[in-house]
Amino acid sequence: MNLARALDLLGIFVFALSGASLAARKGFDAVGLVVLALATGLGGGIIRDVLVGIRPPTALAEQAYLLVPVAAALVVLVAHDRVLRLERPVLVFDAAGLGLFAVSGAVIAVDQGLGWAASVFLGTTTAVGGGIVRDVLAREVPVVLRADSTLYAVPAALGAALTVAAVETDLYGPVAATAIAGAVFLVRVLALRFGWRAPTAR
Amino acid sequence: MNLARALDLLGIFVFALSGASLAARKGFDAVGLVVLALATGLGGGIIRDVLVGIRPPTALAEQAYLLVPVAAALVVLVAHDRVLRLERPVLVFDAAGLGLFAVSGAVIAVDQGLGWAASVFLGTTTAVGGGIVRDVLAREVPVVLRADSTLYAVPAALGAALTVAAVETDLYGPVAATAIAGAVFLVRVLALRFGWRAPTAR
Amino acid sequence: MNLARALDLLGIFVFALSGASLAARKGFDAVGLVVLALATGLGGGIIRDVLVGIRPPTALAEQAYLLVPVAAALVVLVAHDRVLRLERPVLVFDAAGLGLFAVSGAVIAVDQGLGWAASVFLGTTTAVGGGIVRDVLAREVPVVLRADSTLYAVPAALGAALTVAAVETDLYGPVAATAIAGAVFLVRVLALRFGWRAPTAR
Repeated sequence: MNLARALDLLGIFVFALSGASLAARKGFDAVGLVVLALATGLGGGIIRDVLVGIRPPTALAEQAYLLVPVAAALVVLVAHDRVLRLERPVLVFDAAGLGLFAVSGAVIAVDQGLGWAASVFLGTTTAVGGGIVRDVLAREVPVVLRADSTLYAVPAALGAALTVAAVETDLYGPVAATAIAGAVFLVRVLALRFGWRAPTAR
Repeated sequence: MNLARALDLLGIFVFALSGASLAARKGFDAVGLVVLALATGLGGGIIRDVLVGIRPPTALAEQAYLLVPVAAALVVLVAHDRVLRLERPVLVFDAAGLGLFAVSGAVIAVDQGLGWAASVFLGTTTAVGGGIVRDVLAREVPVVLRADSTLYAVPAALGAALTVAAVETDLYGPVAATAIAGAVFLVRVLALRFGWRAPTAR
Repeated sequence: MNLARALDLLGIFVFALSGASLAARKGFDAVGLVVLALATGLGGGIIRDVLVGIRPPTALAEQAYLLVPVAAALVVLVAHDRVLRLERPVLVFDAAGLGLFAVSGAVIAVDQGLGWAASVFLGTTTAVGGGIVRDVLAREVPVVLRADSTLYAVPAALGAALTVAAVETDLYGPVAATAIAGAVFLVRVLALRFGWRAPTAR
């Protein structure tokens, strides 16, 4: 397993933790924890793969992808209190996942021959799609829609756009990918720290 | 850009306006407006393309499709009050989009070799799917399900059925397409005007 | 039409009854009944087919699949009271559908070359996916997530796992399929009878 795959699975694990934690807070049972962990961890990537036509989706083609969210659900099931106390670390890991998925989603879209708008769209969708599925299943207003949420989709979209620009200008590589994912991570963490929000309609 | 494409994008723009307007009424932020505009404008067509196997979906293959909903969201963001005052015109345009999408969705399904039931289903889904996704994301009961909603899916389904019949009898062409879309539009507008509703279970 | 197809359509009919019944209880109109019947009866199979790459999905390729849920919606529309009195029989048929879909979904996944984890996932998704879509559209917390629901996804997942094991060991055939579907059915009915529930997070 190479580094990119390891980082991908780490991002899935953290997203799945957020799904299972929400399930626990809502009082769902163990099945609910597993379902929300799977939906949150894999939802964005599955939507991306279905839309660009990768079949079966990577999440189904490689066994580890399904096992990681189940493991995250088990962690929350047996150690819910400790995971709750880790809310801040989880948010930080989630920000890392956001950056990784925005970059990797955009690159996969460009590789499949899609234009820049579609690639930015798919990078962003990969990063935020799982969270939207999680919130819809848990009957919450999706966090990305809410006016009281700090910037989340915006750094993901910026990161996806930078990734597309880097690919188009032949600057894309491990260094660019790391720098862009790091920038997304930083903007997201700063948005959390300083309460940066998107504007609302007048 | 031919006429069919221009009408398609006009329909997407109007559907996107309805999505962004709902987002504004619910107090979502700018990201919420863009997400609901994209989901409402493109949702029906993307579901259709994924189901019939067109990949990538037209909405991703052609850049204009993604930009039109973003433009609609920006319009609502900067001129929400004026768009609200335009509610009646938006409903009329929405009725036009309903007719156009029911016809074009059914034709695409027939062209892909699907049977009549599947083609009627897909024409209807193209027309009403975006609105369903919009309502699910905004945590509303989908308008098409509600007993207090005026006829919406019914004219779309009738239009899709007429379209399939026209294709099967070799009568389909610009004249038939316009007539059917016009009939869907008319039934929808009359349903709005006179409060026509579907029956409920006894 | 062979036996497997007849059982598949019977399962779809029963799932569709549960969707249309929920629509009637929520006070939706006839369109709402049809939409929820289609979503519940066909949702799981369509998700499975989209994920494994069967296109168009069987539900669209074969006309009967779309007509059966519409028929179920009509039954509920004209005889809602009588269907409500049949709640227990419907739950029993639903348990039968759960077993059939878990087995058939897992087999289709294995046939498409997916690994065991993905095949168990897809068998379970085929069985419980339609109910999740039904609940999301009706703005209910999906039954499978809730702590007060009796075991539903668990017997489906066990049945899918047994199916994969049977295929891998060359034991799969009409006898094994019937036995496994019957075991899922039995566990589900016993869970209903004795109130078996999944554990919740500590």
